[in-house]
Amino acid sequence: MRGKGSLPSLPVAVDAMGGDDAPESVIAGARLAAERGIPILLVGQPEKLADAGDFELVPASQVIAMGAEGAVSVRRMKDSSLVRAAEAVRDGRASAMVSAGNTGAAMAASLLRMGRIRGVARPAIATPIIVPGRAWPNVLLDAGANTECSPEWLVQFAQMGAVYCRDRWGVEEPRVGLLSNGEEAGKGSLLVKEAFELLSSGGWQSRAGAVFAGNVEGRDLLGDLVDVIVTDGFTGNVALKTAEGVAKQLIGALLKAFESSEEARKGAELLAPALAPLYNEFNPDSVGGAILLGISGVSIISHGASSPSALANAIQVAHELAQRDTMSSLRRVLAAR
Amino acid sequence: MRGKGSLPSLPVAVDAMGGDDAPESVIAGARLAAERGIPILLVGQPEKLADAGDFELVPASQVIAMGAEGAVSVRRMKDSSLVRAAEAVRDGRASAMVSAGNTGAAMAASLLRMGRIRGVARPAIATPIIVPGRAWPNVLLDAGANTECSPEWLVQFAQMGAVYCRDRWGVEEPRVGLLSNGEEAGKGSLLVKEAFELLSSGGWQSRAGAVFAGNVEGRDLLGDLVDVIVTDGFTGNVALKTAEGVAKQLIGALLKAFESSEEARKGAELLAPALAPLYNEFNPDSVGGAILLGISGVSIISHGASSPSALANAIQVAHELAQRDTMSSLRRVLAAR
Repeated sequence: MRGKGSLPSLPVAVDAMGGDDAPESVIAGARLAAERGIPILLVGQPEKLADAGDFELVPASQVIAMGAEGAVSVRRMKDSSLVRAAEAVRDGRASAMVSAGNTGAAMAASLLRMGRIRGVARPAIATPIIVPGRAWPNVLLDAGANTECSPEWLVQFAQMGAVYCRDRWGVEEPRVGLLSNGEEAGKGSLLVKEAFELLSSGGWQSRAGAVFAGNVEGRDLLGDLVDVIVTDGFTGNVALKTAEGVAKQLIGALLKAFESSEEARKGAELLAPALAPLYNEFNPDSVGGAILLGISGVSIISHGASSPSALANAIQVAHELAQRDTMSSLRRVLAAR
Repeated sequence: MRGKGSLPSLPVAVDAMGGDDAPESVIAGARLAAERGIPILLVGQPEKLADAGDFELVPASQVIAMGAEGAVSVRRMKDSSLVRAAEAVRDGRASAMVSAGNTGAAMAASLLRMGRIRGVARPAIATPIIVPGRAWPNVLLDAGANTECSPEWLVQFAQMGAVYCRDRWGVEEPRVGLLSNGEEAGKGSLLVKEAFELLSSGGWQSRAGAVFAGNVEGRDLLGDLVDVIVTDGFTGNVALKTAEGVAKQLIGALLKAFESSEEARKGAELLAPALAPLYNEFNPDSVGGAILLGISGVSIISHGASSPSALANAIQVAHELAQRDTMSSLRRVLAAR
């Protein structure tokens, strides 16, 4: 039986060996998710998972290292936790998979074991980006799966991003922006200009129930101008890491200032209640990881440094997407052409 | 006589009509710079500059709008303040020019009137990016002049960026990084991979007195890993605007939290002394604008929203670069091949 990802009783396959503090952090995240009533299948080295409690286990003797080359590792390490997790979905033992391990390997394992949705040229990594003051994030894709892209792939990214945005956050008619170096039509690289032409045509928009909102700029990444932002995997990766880097630098400098004197510490204490909602709003843990779109199954990739609560959220998102059968929505939209 | 930009007695040509609050903000900025002993030539519509005081004026009847297409405007509006400012440098009446106006037009005016340095394929916009805790910024180029680039141009950007970094901030042997979607060699777009090969060769490094430090990622933009970051103008623009957008969003949310309650206001007051140095450190006004490198003269482009103090800093930087004869250093390095 092929996994359909639509049976609510099926567990989520969790790669217990992936992540900076695996397996401890992953086990803790799985426990949090289990407390929310989500059935879980832990995949990894049994001897390392002895303390995991009464989770159902899928044994896997190998671990793909964080820095290893993804596709090569997946081909060589057939008994790795990532490969076994993807196989659990393929074989209908799990409804979805979640890993905080090697992104390239998670991608390769998902692609090679689950296959891609019919009609999809290339799967893309869709990463949610927090929009302050708005209930749902912007979806950026491709955030790094495909370094070189064709204009046609960008149109598919737009379709997949729109379906995902609607299915996951209930945005009725997602606005799709094309990341460029200027908002005017006609701005951009050759790729962007050609993609702009293709995206401007009505066909894909009505099929995906989306609207093309034109070019957007780097400054719109966290803005409420659109709901989905499409770009090639090179630019997407640079933009995402730039955003993360700036936020980290600013917050780090701020926290240091809070500790810089007795007076500052007192001020920070008074500010704490006002800053707490901000912290939650900007906390990437809350959005639950990136998803690989275009794969024939739900595959969520969490940050290597994911906290247990971030992992629990990722597991919950994977579970919900499988229940809602987002993959069937994607199949319908991508089949119609 | 061709402007050499090396005569300390020559004034800096300032485009009085460029910028969101021109000419008022520009006049205010010019006054601040004049107080520091910098000679200034104001370029613009005389009727709008009646209150400017006793600055020497170069009349120009036209103003290129902020949103206008750069190259076209420059060709059509020969009596615009931007074109006249560039001509003042070309004709030896000014040592350098500064504008907070239309970036594309400032670029076109500089290129068409001053010409490019011999051997330079394409001029690039070099933008300083604050590195918290370090006395000098990272220089990012190209920040938007050339949407499509060849690998060879990126090597020239590396050379120009290194010379500029040394001349302006005294960094003896600048480390040059190549912006990519992964730090490992072999990561990147086709352009990045080819540029990596060329940049790895020793020749340009010894000529420019620089070191190639390999690939850097978006998160290194504000980091102390390198001193110069080279990229194509499309990626550079996206990265720069992403960084600006994230910083703006975060700071905006923070300021709102500071005002959200009586208690928060009191806390913010206590924190003010600890936050003040942070504000100065992250304040882009202090770094003095972007420079157009590869042009046969000093041309500084300030942000359209530049405050008078930001403009004064840009004018001072232009003056100092002209005095140090940075253009001759660039000519020497780019001629040797």
